[in-house]
Amino acid sequence: MNKLRYGVAYYDEYMPYDRLQEDIKMMLAAGINTVRIAESTWSTHEPQNGVFDFTSVDRVLDAMHEAGIDVIVGTPTYAVPAWMIKQHPDILATTSRGAGRYGARQIMDITHPAYLFYAERMIRKLMERVHKHPAVIGYQTDNETKHYDTAGDNVQLQFVKYMRNKFGSLEVINQKFGLTYWSNRINSWEEFPSVVGTINGSLGAEFAKFQRTLVNEFLAWQVQIVNEYKLPGQFVTQNFDYDWRGHSFGVQTSVDHFEAAKPFDIAGVDIYHPSQSKLTGIEISFGGDISRSLKQSNYLVLETQAQAFPDWTPYPGQLRLLAFSHVASGANMVAYWHWHSIHNSFETYWKGLLSHDFQPNPVYNEAKTVGADFTKLSHKLVNLRKQNKVAILVSNTALSAIEWFKLPDGKLYNDVFRWIYDELYKLNVEVDFITPDFEQLSHYELVIVPALYSVEDEALERLNEFTEHGGHVVYTFKSGFTNEDVQVRTVVQPGIISKACGISYNMFIAPDEVAKIQSDVLLWSSEDAAITSWMELITPTTAKVLASYDHPEWNNYAAVTRNQYGAGTATYIGCMSSPAALRSILADTLQHIGLWQEEQKLTFPIITKKGFNDEGKLIRYYFNYSGEEQAFVYPHKAGTQLLTDQSVSEGQQITLSPWGFVIIEQ
Amino acid sequence: MNKLRYGVAYYDEYMPYDRLQEDIKMMLAAGINTVRIAESTWSTHEPQNGVFDFTSVDRVLDAMHEAGIDVIVGTPTYAVPAWMIKQHPDILATTSRGAGRYGARQIMDITHPAYLFYAERMIRKLMERVHKHPAVIGYQTDNETKHYDTAGDNVQLQFVKYMRNKFGSLEVINQKFGLTYWSNRINSWEEFPSVVGTINGSLGAEFAKFQRTLVNEFLAWQVQIVNEYKLPGQFVTQNFDYDWRGHSFGVQTSVDHFEAAKPFDIAGVDIYHPSQSKLTGIEISFGGDISRSLKQSNYLVLETQAQAFPDWTPYPGQLRLLAFSHVASGANMVAYWHWHSIHNSFETYWKGLLSHDFQPNPVYNEAKTVGADFTKLSHKLVNLRKQNKVAILVSNTALSAIEWFKLPDGKLYNDVFRWIYDELYKLNVEVDFITPDFEQLSHYELVIVPALYSVEDEALERLNEFTEHGGHVVYTFKSGFTNEDVQVRTVVQPGIISKACGISYNMFIAPDEVAKIQSDVLLWSSEDAAITSWMELITPTTAKVLASYDHPEWNNYAAVTRNQYGAGTATYIGCMSSPAALRSILADTLQHIGLWQEEQKLTFPIITKKGFNDEGKLIRYYFNYSGEEQAFVYPHKAGTQLLTDQSVSEGQQITLSPWGFVIIEQ
Amino acid sequence: MNKLRYGVAYYDEYMPYDRLQEDIKMMLAAGINTVRIAESTWSTHEPQNGVFDFTSVDRVLDAMHEAGIDVIVGTPTYAVPAWMIKQHPDILATTSRGAGRYGARQIMDITHPAYLFYAERMIRKLMERVHKHPAVIGYQTDNETKHYDTAGDNVQLQFVKYMRNKFGSLEVINQKFGLTYWSNRINSWEEFPSVVGTINGSLGAEFAKFQRTLVNEFLAWQVQIVNEYKLPGQFVTQNFDYDWRGHSFGVQTSVDHFEAAKPFDIAGVDIYHPSQSKLTGIEISFGGDISRSLKQSNYLVLETQAQAFPDWTPYPGQLRLLAFSHVASGANMVAYWHWHSIHNSFETYWKGLLSHDFQPNPVYNEAKTVGADFTKLSHKLVNLRKQNKVAILVSNTALSAIEWFKLPDGKLYNDVFRWIYDELYKLNVEVDFITPDFEQLSHYELVIVPALYSVEDEALERLNEFTEHGGHVVYTFKSGFTNEDVQVRTVVQPGIISKACGISYNMFIAPDEVAKIQSDVLLWSSEDAAITSWMELITPTTAKVLASYDHPEWNNYAAVTRNQYGAGTATYIGCMSSPAALRSILADTLQHIGLWQEEQKLTFPIITKKGFNDEGKLIRYYFNYSGEEQAFVYPHKAGTQLLTDQSVSEGQQITLSPWGFVIIEQ
Repeated sequence: MNKLRYGVAYYDEYMPYDRLQEDIKMMLAAGINTVRIAESTWSTHEPQNGVFDFTSVDRVLDAMHEAGIDVIVGTPTYAVPAWMIKQHPDILATTSRGAGRYGARQIMDITHPAYLFYAERMIRKLMERVHKHPAVIGYQTDNETKHYDTAGDNVQLQFVKYMRNKFGSLEVINQKFGLTYWSNRINSWEEFPSVVGTINGSLGAEFAKFQRTLVNEFLAWQVQIVNEYKLPGQFVTQNFDYDWRGHSFGVQTSVDHFEAAKPFDIAGVDIYHPSQSKLTGIEISFGGDISRSLKQSNYLVLETQAQAFPDWTPYPGQLRLLAFSHVASGANMVAYWHWHSIHNSFETYWKGLLSHDFQPNPVYNEAKTVGADFTKLSHKLVNLRKQNKVAILVSNTALSAIEWFKLPDGKLYNDVFRWIYDELYKLNVEVDFITPDFEQLSHYELVIVPALYSVEDEALERLNEFTEHGGHVVYTFKSGFTNEDVQVRTVVQPGIISKACGISYNMFIAPDEVAKIQSDVLLWSSEDAAITSWMELITPTTAKVLASYDHPEWNNYAAVTRNQYGAGTATYIGCMSSPAALRSILADTLQHIGLWQEEQKLTFPIITKKGFNDEGKLIRYYFNYSGEEQAFVYPHKAGTQLLTDQSVSEGQQITLSPWGFVIIEQ
Repeated sequence: MNKLRYGVAYYDEYMPYDRLQEDIKMMLAAGINTVRIAESTWSTHEPQNGVFDFTSVDRVLDAMHEAGIDVIVGTPTYAVPAWMIKQHPDILATTSRGAGRYGARQIMDITHPAYLFYAERMIRKLMERVHKHPAVIGYQTDNETKHYDTAGDNVQLQFVKYMRNKFGSLEVINQKFGLTYWSNRINSWEEFPSVVGTINGSLGAEFAKFQRTLVNEFLAWQVQIVNEYKLPGQFVTQNFDYDWRGHSFGVQTSVDHFEAAKPFDIAGVDIYHPSQSKLTGIEISFGGDISRSLKQSNYLVLETQAQAFPDWTPYPGQLRLLAFSHVASGANMVAYWHWHSIHNSFETYWKGLLSHDFQPNPVYNEAKTVGADFTKLSHKLVNLRKQNKVAILVSNTALSAIEWFKLPDGKLYNDVFRWIYDELYKLNVEVDFITPDFEQLSHYELVIVPALYSVEDEALERLNEFTEHGGHVVYTFKSGFTNEDVQVRTVVQPGIISKACGISYNMFIAPDEVAKIQSDVLLWSSEDAAITSWMELITPTTAKVLASYDHPEWNNYAAVTRNQYGAGTATYIGCMSSPAALRSILADTLQHIGLWQEEQKLTFPIITKKGFNDEGKLIRYYFNYSGEEQAFVYPHKAGTQLLTDQSVSEGQQITLSPWGFVIIEQ
Repeated sequence: MNKLRYGVAYYDEYMPYDRLQEDIKMMLAAGINTVRIAESTWSTHEPQNGVFDFTSVDRVLDAMHEAGIDVIVGTPTYAVPAWMIKQHPDILATTSRGAGRYGARQIMDITHPAYLFYAERMIRKLMERVHKHPAVIGYQTDNETKHYDTAGDNVQLQFVKYMRNKFGSLEVINQKFGLTYWSNRINSWEEFPSVVGTINGSLGAEFAKFQRTLVNEFLAWQVQIVNEYKLPGQFVTQNFDYDWRGHSFGVQTSVDHFEAAKPFDIAGVDIYHPSQSKLTGIEISFGGDISRSLKQSNYLVLETQAQAFPDWTPYPGQLRLLAFSHVASGANMVAYWHWHSIHNSFETYWKGLLSHDFQPNPVYNEAKTVGADFTKLSHKLVNLRKQNKVAILVSNTALSAIEWFKLPDGKLYNDVFRWIYDELYKLNVEVDFITPDFEQLSHYELVIVPALYSVEDEALERLNEFTEHGGHVVYTFKSGFTNEDVQVRTVVQPGIISKACGISYNMFIAPDEVAKIQSDVLLWSSEDAAITSWMELITPTTAKVLASYDHPEWNNYAAVTRNQYGAGTATYIGCMSSPAALRSILADTLQHIGLWQEEQKLTFPIITKKGFNDEGKLIRYYFNYSGEEQAFVYPHKAGTQLLTDQSVSEGQQITLSPWGFVIIEQ
């Protein structure tokens, strides 16, 4: 990508009156150089079966081109028209909750041939129409695609075939999945019961894995069609989104992003997060780190919040902070969902850059400063490259398995993931993301492995080998407990990694109110000593104990250990500590392995990010994620503050205004 | 009505043994002069399809007549017999929760022709039987009629026709309802999807509006049949009830009471409320004010609680207080549901005046004193007429719209309504209720408009005109935001009323923990300064700021404003304040516009109500809604305490016993 | 039974690899002398319709026999194979929640002829195979059998016939059940509506009663089949379980244990309970007392927890304490569910004696000491006989009725039951359990009757007679309120027992925050004076007031009374007091009637149990249910501490280690 893009989603079709020229004028004033269109409006573009109308697409493309604004065209396949469902009601996904109802988006069975027929026809018609238009720089296939829990009879049939292909025989499945339990054995293929009622976690997790393959196949199929039309210089992307807990929270449950991203030219993503006094930047950071890791390259933020909800409307200064935070993580585009606020229907209170009155407002006015600075600094900031020494290993397989076997207090995979990520973020440790099948572990010095509950032997052996050859690994509790079929390993836990970790355990406890950890080595307040959710009663074999339990009954057991294994170390965290104690454990690990740098001496709310630009220069960002002024001493070689063109020298004190930031080119 | 009626619901059919003469003896001893019968017992009166048996009706009518007790006969249509559902299972209403189940009352589709056929036959048979009986003074059609969420295919078809009649074309509907969003456009009538799955708030709110018309039509149809039999002097009423949150809480969601009341001769109502230490009288007051406003006349309390639930059983004195509170609001009848406590089924713990043992008990004994005083004072207290200067404008349309677009903390229309009403009540401001289409605004000096979120332009223009000509209006946040189709107005907010209010806003926030309001003009404690639920960031144009936000980020914006507009004023409350702060705002408004009277100098728990009786004399009630003795100085012209026949002079101190009251004829 | 049995459930079928000989070696080391097999593995034993494979049963029986371990064989009927449901989907129970789904166990309609056909064939095949095997000592039919809420059309038909058989005519039903209410009358048999939608508590409670008869019939049918094969010396048992609130909580809702137990030779039971710092022993005690009362004999604990959940894993010492607590209540067997921890499916975290690694662990090691002591002391401890003077009268009928008519704060029958039982337990009062139809009341000196809300006249009259003849009764609130049809008695409450209790009431209240009880006779702290859930406003006729209400409005009423009636006394507790106040009331009652013994001078956490062994010697257990050392003075005749063979003399101080205990033979 040759410039930094500042964008909005634009729905001419949703406008209460013709605003196109007025909107473009306001966009240009705000530095908007890219719009995303068309992905939600199938019923406008095909009002009746086989009747097509791309008037609004045409006129927006023409007008944008005339204004010099580039356009990303989305295929409108994620929201099906009423006529289609009236004609083929079974296009609605049947889920474990029963038959679907028409109304919302993302309610169809993405494997249904009738849906695929209509979708393909629509995609081809749209592509034929737009692909040669000079405004078009790329395409988004579908939007936030997931499997929508599709689990009807037809999906069940596909699953049975998937199982036969994968495992060969029922006897293998019965054995690996433990179906003998509670008389669940399947002894002939035609009696394979619908999975929606299963109580077997292995089967349930495998079904989730299968459902994710449906997303991969669907997206690859769309990309293949779009690629037939794509011109040189145009790209195809997808708008991935994250596990949703009222905002982007963690690893996506329904999609294996790493696998699904393969056919795309560039990764796109939407990131939404708490704001106002709850703004930390963490979601921007982890979402960006994952997105960047998908194609090991820069990515597009296709959607993020402008005004959004009444509890997200940014404080003055926050919109600027957010935009540059995305760029600092490696985004080449920051686009808002959406330009204007919608006057009807469902997302009336998910406000855009403009309010319902279309007038300039404080947030729009702040966007104008972002646009101006993006334009000015585009050549310095675009295509930021990272060289991270730390990676986090994440796994959809482990995630699904933990949905079946939650921690006693209900915590899930992403709670453990965020517990880890948040403290790395606060320590200013930048990370890449890898998956269990990633083979070049030696690219990193430290690999952090949260709750890798279900995983193939090979991946664990690879981690052991990495450690033995001088790599460092931090494991949390639950890692390695079951194999890829969610079958608990029959050996002493933590199984395959026991030797690298130098520990064993066979009992685990739900911590009660008095459960704490104590350490002779690490420091935390007595308040921060409390542990929650899980505690494994660890016995070191060769490991050194970093922390042990402080409990009337369990104080003979280790809680956190570190083991020298070959040339590397394996640190094992056997319980869910407080964030502060975790930070202490992580800091100790970084120091122990020589990764404690200047960045780590700064602490949240000061966040720093860095990378190399197209000129090969090191760009450093310093963000203030608080409403109070912050200051720090700049410890690196002299450079230039890009926003102000002021020079900065080593040892100089730099002040960050509330929700403010500086960008230094070294 | 020529006398004050004291009544009970009486179900001879529910009695475990023949008690009729004994019950009548006890009724007479308690001064009961009216009973309500028959509305729940269809399966007794028509035990099999076409087989009728009115024995119990006949014997009760005869016995009551002999005892001099009048009877209101209810049509038994709100609870359908088992035989009917076995023969026509689709009479059960299909709702968004699926098919119905037989068992409860109020489960039928009130538009189903088979149901209507049976209901009409039953009504006619009953009316033929009873209308000439000298005991019968009137009729109640059905009971607490609502639409029961009926939404099956047949109802959907009616809705589609309603939409075509109302809007003419799908293009108009697509545009007004914003159906383009998420591909929801309907491009041919036959593909109009079932509304139960819709995510479109405009469509959802319109369906709710349509469902309310079904209630209007059903009740008008019943009244028309009954009117064919009604003799001169007899009346037809309906037992309206209110939004239910474990007790009567606010404006009814499922019925437009103002519209539904039109065919009736007199409004009837049931009012249930917390009791014991939680008794405030608010529900009696607002329920009475609404009921009185329906026909702008006196009304019947067809049901209220005697002993009722274990947490409602009245403290000594409360039953008396309650009965006279109803009368003070304009009720001409106070009737208990129900005479005795039921020995089986569902409402065993919703106790009547008698316990299950049919013996005199403390509550029955207290009722005897009520009955005696009703008899003694009937000519003084019946037909109380009010001349209120303040009206509250309520709207089912706004209510439904807010069901779709709740406040961020989940609050609904009735929460805002009660927030307003409760403080007016505590300030002893008596009010009438009006709806947006009410044209004689000049009957009032002050109109209070809570959360009029969805409303036609005309209604707002009428309010502007009212203000301009010297009327005063208090608006709360959210008023005027969307039009009658729940389409957000595209102009600067608060839209049409902006000019009268002299303000604008385009941002709104979910208040966080530190959000407060401050004022140089109004007073409240720092604790009472906290705001919740909603805050609009208001910029005054011509308005004076009464209160502004006290918040690290939003303190440049106004929270409460007042604007002189023509000869009147418009006060705008942009956030949900504490009750105390609201009371301060309302008190300031009353003072500002000259409505601060002697009544307002009394404060809750002393509540005063007034009105003129048939003799044209002013009757004043003073209630003590507390368990502690209260005293006040009587500030009006001399009069007579009606309960004791003692005279009272201006300036005399009057003591109210715990849960006690006085009635003064001036 | 000629010895104390120490057992485990053993599923060779669930093993990830062949472990049989290794497992048996470890069992023998732990003193395991009995295993329970086969009850969950139908799909293994009949992999296809009519194809049988008992290989795993054969090999386990042979190996166990060789090792000298006895085997209880379970019929595998509580978990149906996939092939059966694919062929006959309607075997899945239809419930009020709709059609069933395959997956879990206990999901079938136990009245379905196809299911019964397959079940009978399986039982006979299995019995033919095993009944002559020398390892087999007995059989368990099915497992934790309940009715699984089966309520489909076929069950409804059976219910209608049950109703006709029981009541004769619809007129009787309409009258007794109050079906006139809300037009629920049933006027012809063919229109009898499905009960799943009913709002009639009498009908709903009767349906629950009917559903319990289905369990009785199903179990009796299984026993009858098994009995055809059973050899002399073999027994048939059932694994009863209790109301489940995350652990065994109270009287089972879905089964009338007393009735269901009749065809069995010996009662079996599973008992699960909180552990670690929440361990009290109460569930072991009440579960044991009920189980022992079923056949008025010793019982088998067929399942209890070894490691189980992460919050149940026993502290060191607790496993021993638990095992002997069961024996002290009269258990002749203590068996763990289960031997090993399961590696897949649903109960992976319900751990067995072994962890997933099959290695010795602290809990297994503790089991070895239990096994050794069981072996050593078997002849002293087996067949413990109790001679209790106190009985608790429990009732499924009352339980079901209260499900329909919950206490205002949602409390149910078992909350009242546990409120009573827990304080008796803490007072070291050992009890038997009886039901309302129990006729030999004079076997006891004191009968305690919690919330006997629905009951036949005869049972109450029997209690009156018992009282009159010198028995003592303690009733709680709600007792006697309705008859067996859940029809409230029409007489003054508490109805039939009024004369024995010497009280009356007709009002009852949901206590508010200030509701308390006070007493001149009994002592409790002001904090313990608070009452919750329910308060009846009692007027004594002949009773003495033990406590009255302390409330601004209700302090004229009695709360707890005692009445001399003939030669006995009836104590009535009209409200739900604090546990401490209840303990005071119960203690006073025990003292008053001469049942205050040495045992009652000890208080929780010291718990004592006693009984006579096969030699006629008195065995006393003293348990310490706490993590702190406890001491007491032994007040009885000299004896021997069985675990240590030390002698103990009267007046000697005995120290109990944390979670420790002593057993003394007197």
